[in-house]
Amino acid sequence: MNDLKKIRNVKLGKKVWLSDFINLYDCEIGDETKVGPFVEIQRGVKVGSRCKISSHSFLCEGVSLGNGVFIGHGVMFTNDRNPKATNEDGELMSPYEWLLETTVVEDRVSIGSGAVILPGITLGEACMVGAGAVVTRSVPAGATVVGNPARIVKERE
Amino acid sequence: MNDLKKIRNVKLGKKVWLSDFINLYDCEIGDETKVGPFVEIQRGVKVGSRCKISSHSFLCEGVSLGNGVFIGHGVMFTNDRNPKATNEDGELMSPYEWLLETTVVEDRVSIGSGAVILPGITLGEACMVGAGAVVTRSVPAGATVVGNPARIVKERE
Amino acid sequence: MNDLKKIRNVKLGKKVWLSDFINLYDCEIGDETKVGPFVEIQRGVKVGSRCKISSHSFLCEGVSLGNGVFIGHGVMFTNDRNPKATNEDGELMSPYEWLLETTVVEDRVSIGSGAVILPGITLGEACMVGAGAVVTRSVPAGATVVGNPARIVKERE
Repeated sequence: MNDLKKIRNVKLGKKVWLSDFINLYDCEIGDETKVGPFVEIQRGVKVGSRCKISSHSFLCEGVSLGNGVFIGHGVMFTNDRNPKATNEDGELMSPYEWLLETTVVEDRVSIGSGAVILPGITLGEACMVGAGAVVTRSVPAGATVVGNPARIVKERE
Repeated sequence: MNDLKKIRNVKLGKKVWLSDFINLYDCEIGDETKVGPFVEIQRGVKVGSRCKISSHSFLCEGVSLGNGVFIGHGVMFTNDRNPKATNEDGELMSPYEWLLETTVVEDRVSIGSGAVILPGITLGEACMVGAGAVVTRSVPAGATVVGNPARIVKERE
Repeated sequence: MNDLKKIRNVKLGKKVWLSDFINLYDCEIGDETKVGPFVEIQRGVKVGSRCKISSHSFLCEGVSLGNGVFIGHGVMFTNDRNPKATNEDGELMSPYEWLLETTVVEDRVSIGSGAVILPGITLGEACMVGAGAVVTRSVPAGATVVGNPARIVKERE
């Protein structure tokens, strides 16, 4: 660890590989997983074993990844369908004033670079999200989705 | 301030919260605003009070944010519809050789993660830009837009 | 150079300008090129002279840029159409188990912010990729493409 890795209260498995320029806190990373530069992983996130989290990606509170998951570069997860900076009174939103929606990414899912994942959905086992896709609903196991909004272009083989 | 915050000539309001891994210069940030990691804010940008600028976002010269604005993760603003690296003579473009177009983000706007905002437009008060949207024209106050290019899916309530 | 620039085995031309918060290795950067913050450039990449690589962009192995190329902010290149974290045996993929596809970016191409470039294609001389475009096939010289997937909206003038 050096000063370019900001890591607070992270449960790390064996042989985890962490790049510089990362911000990880209060999360859990499984064995042999790799994390690229310019990645943030927030509180409560669980990342399985032998995952690859590529550069510039963001995993927010509410996200869980199974084992063998590939996250491309610049992938953005979300956890709030109606994000706001302030409440009705014009004060900064507190953590108690909004609904966190969870996202489940099952084993061996691959998410292409630049994809955006809306909250409250499940990406089924070994499904593939195309690069640049904006995923607004759950994806069945083994399917491939592309586009904005993402549509299924291939069912499970 | 530490060495992981690159901050030059920034006018900071009260109780501003700044993450590590940021690059801010010659700009202005209002009271109680929060700035996440991996954010760049350029010369001349004005950010209002109680805004939230999430990780991986980029605010270029020419952008101004009102108060209570939410900027999601990985949001890219732009200020040049026809960007080039070099001029007709093959030399690097100088700051005097291109037209900067401004972008106005009014109070309480929310911009979802991964959105891209084309220049020369206004995002009207309390409008909502969906995650992954590519916004090519101004958005009326209170409206919701999604898609690439972004279309209105809900008018002001 | 300071500690916020991670640079290993990079062949730098004259008057190259490098921002802080960058991760460059085993690559080549031509004269007078500028590289913004939060950029990663990987092994084997060749960047020509007088290019501009803007913040938050990612250039992967297999990419080559000509001279006078403009890369906007948050642009993601790719080199694998079928990325996976693990192989059939559930082990981490080794570099020998997948096919790297190359991407050629010719002289004076401009790529707008937030664009995603699929692998195995050529972006022809002086073509323009619109902000937020997802480019899935080669672009002819001088053409303009926009959208997801990117379509030609203007031929060479």
